[in-house]
Amino acid sequence: MAISSFNPPVRTLMGPGPSDVHPRILEAMSRPTIGHLDPVFVHMMEEVKELLQYAFQTRNQLTLPVSAPGSAGMETCFANLVEPGDKVIVCQNGVFGGRMKENVERCGGEAVMVQDPWGRAVDPQKLEDALKANPDAKLVAFVHAETSTGAQSDARALVELAHQHDCLTIVDAVTSLGGTPVRVDDWGIDAIYSGTQKCLSCTPGLSPVSFSDAAADKIKNRSRKVQSWFLDMNLVIGYWGGGAKRTYHHTAPINALYGLHESLVMLQEEGIENAWARHAHNHNALKAGLEALGLTFVVPETERLPQLNAVTIPEGVDDAAVRTRLLKEFNLEIGAGLGDLAGKVWRIGLMGHASRAENIVLCIAALEAVLADMGASINTGVALGAAQKALAGK
Amino acid sequence: MAISSFNPPVRTLMGPGPSDVHPRILEAMSRPTIGHLDPVFVHMMEEVKELLQYAFQTRNQLTLPVSAPGSAGMETCFANLVEPGDKVIVCQNGVFGGRMKENVERCGGEAVMVQDPWGRAVDPQKLEDALKANPDAKLVAFVHAETSTGAQSDARALVELAHQHDCLTIVDAVTSLGGTPVRVDDWGIDAIYSGTQKCLSCTPGLSPVSFSDAAADKIKNRSRKVQSWFLDMNLVIGYWGGGAKRTYHHTAPINALYGLHESLVMLQEEGIENAWARHAHNHNALKAGLEALGLTFVVPETERLPQLNAVTIPEGVDDAAVRTRLLKEFNLEIGAGLGDLAGKVWRIGLMGHASRAENIVLCIAALEAVLADMGASINTGVALGAAQKALAGK
Repeated sequence: MAISSFNPPVRTLMGPGPSDVHPRILEAMSRPTIGHLDPVFVHMMEEVKELLQYAFQTRNQLTLPVSAPGSAGMETCFANLVEPGDKVIVCQNGVFGGRMKENVERCGGEAVMVQDPWGRAVDPQKLEDALKANPDAKLVAFVHAETSTGAQSDARALVELAHQHDCLTIVDAVTSLGGTPVRVDDWGIDAIYSGTQKCLSCTPGLSPVSFSDAAADKIKNRSRKVQSWFLDMNLVIGYWGGGAKRTYHHTAPINALYGLHESLVMLQEEGIENAWARHAHNHNALKAGLEALGLTFVVPETERLPQLNAVTIPEGVDDAAVRTRLLKEFNLEIGAGLGDLAGKVWRIGLMGHASRAENIVLCIAALEAVLADMGASINTGVALGAAQKALAGK
Repeated sequence: MAISSFNPPVRTLMGPGPSDVHPRILEAMSRPTIGHLDPVFVHMMEEVKELLQYAFQTRNQLTLPVSAPGSAGMETCFANLVEPGDKVIVCQNGVFGGRMKENVERCGGEAVMVQDPWGRAVDPQKLEDALKANPDAKLVAFVHAETSTGAQSDARALVELAHQHDCLTIVDAVTSLGGTPVRVDDWGIDAIYSGTQKCLSCTPGLSPVSFSDAAADKIKNRSRKVQSWFLDMNLVIGYWGGGAKRTYHHTAPINALYGLHESLVMLQEEGIENAWARHAHNHNALKAGLEALGLTFVVPETERLPQLNAVTIPEGVDDAAVRTRLLKEFNLEIGAGLGDLAGKVWRIGLMGHASRAENIVLCIAALEAVLADMGASINTGVALGAAQKALAGK
């Protein structure tokens, strides 16, 4: 064997996540490990909950990070809220709606699918039709920010419709949290999950979740146990919600939580409205540059996420070859297409710490250099100027 | 709000885990984050698998770290191997056997419990009786190293009995891996899970697992889907097992895996037999010191784990007060009792990087100082000498 220490290259991460992690967060993760029941750690956990409430714009008591990546956050919401036989309306407009369907079915529920084209927002009219056709539905689930396409749906409108039909809501905010407005209380969201490795600029591995009182009540009063012991909020709350009297459930990922704490402190320092504005501003600059190159967006402008930019790969260009060259020549990672869009689009993330002027000009310059060198039919010599103009707010 | 950065105190971690994390591992975790599909990262994943095979002493192809703490590793084994209606014999001799029962039942299985006293090893005769009484049992599950008591069971004998009765085996090695012999192939274990925060000296958050070919076949040929999408090995393998062709399942906890990689490189450098010998040697020294103080062990000597030392709290001594003083005055964490043993025992860990001479003398000296000051009836002035003598191999 004789395997030696791993020293990763220094990349610029402009894919769909993980995004660039701020050095402050990396440094925080390397601080000395303490016990998961240490009073000092317990105090930090209270701060993490309070900071997450700010990030989610909620006063929900049941707001905490699940000790596993975003996919486990999704499963936490479904496993706790779906009981066998429950009918769940799932709005799908990309990969992650499909994963929601899997979750419903593995919990013994029945998924009623509402399909929208990949690259478009969820159509509220279709949801309303489905709610009328399924008066026995108990839950509505949808993805606020589809990471596979870059489409943003109108969460407020969808939740309002669900509530009119007495359904609770499960919302995927993996890519939206911290990058574009997510207002859990204002919008009345009942269960929401996110990830740490997107607009929070943290490393992957944790999934912030929040449950409304109505959702928390439903979880408390289930007719049978949650099928997952690890994700059962009735047990997790004994550790995360117990104040000084907390009890062991599982061993929390101490150092990962140091990182999340630091990233949330940074979000608080910047101010969440400022973070949203920064993501919007930088999106405009990247868009100006990409469009000047001649690339076109997958998602219509009014439904576009600022932090995830899916653009169509120009005719005749080898997807993987371009991404490999960007990585090898410029240490720049952009994302491939996922599911139906594999090989057809690139996904360029501008998330959290990666949403910076220097990343935008690097990405535009590197893309132009590689595409021009490969003989793609793009416009040259104009994209950087367009991006810089937009960065300057002109 | 105005919550500021978190700077933890520097503790010595001699509880049941997390144990002291080596600075090399903390530093590794702070290295730059790269993408979870980056070819450089994929190469590191292959090394992690190979290093885990060494740690588990196995050639099992299906050997990888689950992206969540040890409890999720337990759930991974049960959720993948138990189908509704399956009868599972669970040997319980502490807290974690009880958790196994929960897992079986939440998977729709039937748990047949074989009870042994807390603080004792699992009795092979009782397992054999249960196997004879339940010829339709499909699985046998037990805890190799009971973290709640410090008892070590004879995994080889228990697995052999299970196989004689055509049962597959699930083994909890959370506290044993890296600290006391675990020989997956020699012993014929079918499914095993561990944690990173014990004798591997890493931070908590990942759970190494390994499945024999027989177990892997059973998982592939299930009659219905694994109830957890996140933990479904049929999907996880597409990411961890795919070589160059791996596909996205969930986003791996990149920096946590840097830490695990480094801890496994360190285990390889030390040599696993040397690590086992170090744990045994240091246990003898701690034992000599504790017994010289007048404290008694919960577990009979022949069934004792070297890395987790449960001792009875002396009559009239306030459990919490002692632990609080150790933490406040000496930054030393030892563990409380769990479950039936709460308030009755302390659990003193000597795991991984925490299994060092300096920790032993600190622990003995601090315990003696605090207990003497609180008027406990212990022997003074002799314990350090006894520990030092044992450390010197005399």
